[in-house]
Amino acid sequence: MSTSFEVKGTCPHTAARAGVLTTPHGEVPTPTFVPVGTQATVKSLSPEEISALGTRMVLGNTYHLYLRPGIEVIERLGGLHRFMGWHRPLITDSGGYQVFSLARLRRVSDEGVLFRSHIDGSEHFFTPELAIQFQETLGADIIMALDECPPYSDDREAVKQATQRTHRWAERCLRSRKRQDQALYGIVQGGVFGELRRDSANFLTSLGFEGYAIGGLSLGEPKEVTAEMVAETVARLPQDKPRYLMGVGSPDDLVEGVSRGIDIFDSALPTRIARNGGLFTTGGRCIIRNAQFRDRDRPIEEECDCYTCRHFSAAYLHHLFRCEELLAYRLATLHNLRFVVRLMEQMREHILSDTFPSFKHSFLSSYQPTDEGIRFDQRQKWLKARGYDA
Amino acid sequence: MSTSFEVKGTCPHTAARAGVLTTPHGEVPTPTFVPVGTQATVKSLSPEEISALGTRMVLGNTYHLYLRPGIEVIERLGGLHRFMGWHRPLITDSGGYQVFSLARLRRVSDEGVLFRSHIDGSEHFFTPELAIQFQETLGADIIMALDECPPYSDDREAVKQATQRTHRWAERCLRSRKRQDQALYGIVQGGVFGELRRDSANFLTSLGFEGYAIGGLSLGEPKEVTAEMVAETVARLPQDKPRYLMGVGSPDDLVEGVSRGIDIFDSALPTRIARNGGLFTTGGRCIIRNAQFRDRDRPIEEECDCYTCRHFSAAYLHHLFRCEELLAYRLATLHNLRFVVRLMEQMREHILSDTFPSFKHSFLSSYQPTDEGIRFDQRQKWLKARGYDA
Repeated sequence: MSTSFEVKGTCPHTAARAGVLTTPHGEVPTPTFVPVGTQATVKSLSPEEISALGTRMVLGNTYHLYLRPGIEVIERLGGLHRFMGWHRPLITDSGGYQVFSLARLRRVSDEGVLFRSHIDGSEHFFTPELAIQFQETLGADIIMALDECPPYSDDREAVKQATQRTHRWAERCLRSRKRQDQALYGIVQGGVFGELRRDSANFLTSLGFEGYAIGGLSLGEPKEVTAEMVAETVARLPQDKPRYLMGVGSPDDLVEGVSRGIDIFDSALPTRIARNGGLFTTGGRCIIRNAQFRDRDRPIEEECDCYTCRHFSAAYLHHLFRCEELLAYRLATLHNLRFVVRLMEQMREHILSDTFPSFKHSFLSSYQPTDEGIRFDQRQKWLKARGYDA
Repeated sequence: MSTSFEVKGTCPHTAARAGVLTTPHGEVPTPTFVPVGTQATVKSLSPEEISALGTRMVLGNTYHLYLRPGIEVIERLGGLHRFMGWHRPLITDSGGYQVFSLARLRRVSDEGVLFRSHIDGSEHFFTPELAIQFQETLGADIIMALDECPPYSDDREAVKQATQRTHRWAERCLRSRKRQDQALYGIVQGGVFGELRRDSANFLTSLGFEGYAIGGLSLGEPKEVTAEMVAETVARLPQDKPRYLMGVGSPDDLVEGVSRGIDIFDSALPTRIARNGGLFTTGGRCIIRNAQFRDRDRPIEEECDCYTCRHFSAAYLHHLFRCEELLAYRLATLHNLRFVVRLMEQMREHILSDTFPSFKHSFLSSYQPTDEGIRFDQRQKWLKARGYDA
């Protein structure tokens, strides 16, 4: 059985839509947020907990799993679902993003990318064909084409070259696939350049993937740019295929993304900032280590239905974080993921009942976004290059 | 309602016995192992998990809770049970052991002990009266008298002085208590000196506590000495009161302790070695990081009914430990605690059905004990002092 996608409802005032993704391991109502299980585990959580908080799909990182424990180990142990005890839908990414952001790059050519492991410095070579072979072995429901991810600081010409290479790699990924029970998604690149994004969306669409991802965003550019690039790209993607915005996961960005027609998101942000003690509330992110929580005999978020908020006071969480107790990271992760999953559920309901715009307005007017630490000079440079007042 | 203790069955061939401890927060079948929740959390586990693995009682450390978050914070948040979300029986220790082993000692006098915090070096003063006051505020079901814990290296005279001070402090603890719904236990000291142990047991028994603990063992002495001291002490404790061996938690030591008439044990060992990747099996402790587990497509322990063994391969656990993933510490903790809790359940059943000696023999003949790193020179010194061939 292969995957399919059906749009169940659209918002008449925005590009938002509600759908259902059907995979060999079950259905995923969209829009959906996909927690990151980098090394075959969503950090600190058991599969039962991930499932109980409403998560329907998890992402594994081919780059990490290739290095540890090795693709062949997971193969011998029955594939990624069985290895990690997660029997619902899985995505694996191709490793492209990690090779270009985490590993030490040695050489990129049309043939593939030579890199050194961030763990032990050992040298490895990824090609589009190998990325597909690895992912077919891991056995996720959705797999991704190998892409080249240029850094945010690259100029137009460099980004154009990388995007064209991504296109040639996408064709090779399609040609080399053997399994038909996995959905293969192409990844639109093009940096922060609208016409490159448009070209990339048009080209990949012409190849005919089962879904389309938008890569190379949320890498430091201002939020308004992310939104602009998403809108430019979505406008050129087919209506009947799922659209997946990679690496986006802050609550306000999720609302903006859904509003622009995105069906699937993944990001390490909710879980990573949870482990750093940053907890989502409807008013924005709170820092649980702050002294104001020392005596707070109420949950982090009064209306939250997560395990943490139903059982523990903010004061207890504050104490666990101050003591660097392992339970702290888990309780915070449960809260942030439930916050995001619930937000997706709410958006879906509002899209289906034609009330999405007012929900969006209400959510964004209370939620204070947090600057993710975009470097000031990057922002200045970007604004100047676009002709804005810097 | 106060606590009570009833012996339900005794082994005719050993000193082992099965009982029931009744507390304001529920019953505890004995013999029982009490996991350590030092800082108001059993490291990495939720209260539901602790309960699900069959644990009936948890221990909190007054010393740690006094320093963080502070006794008065827990008081404002409704006491220790409510603060940590554990609504079953709780023990708190007096802080004595931690002050003497973890803090930097400044001055010990009959009045009390002046020490510096191991966290920030701040100076604090504990007295027997304060130890009781703190524990009455925390509100555990069983509380402990303040004791002086001399190091294993101390000579007979030093240990005698410390034991006599422990006795004077025990009297003051009894006099200063205000709550009658908590059980107050005295702590027998006396190091590795049989007659000091006997004197201490006799003296504390004459004061009339609701239970008796044996402190100051498992500090580096050979296992046979621990066993000898336990036997010496137990012989002088009242039959109708619970006996609590503090700081003992390796599977073989638990079997030996039960066999010598102990009802309650606590120790950080099962959880601490779990976090270091040491996992209990019926054959002894295994080191999950070892390469032999890389491809092992079976649970750690085939017959184990713990969450970890029912859901994951040893290979997956090996992978999580190699990657230092948070889930590793939790899955290992669940396994080791369930192993120990199940061992206690099995011993209780065998005591009640008069088959304890054969169970003990069978368990100890398969379980290979691990040397807890007793320093060789300590062992030599001790053996020589006792007239053994070193």
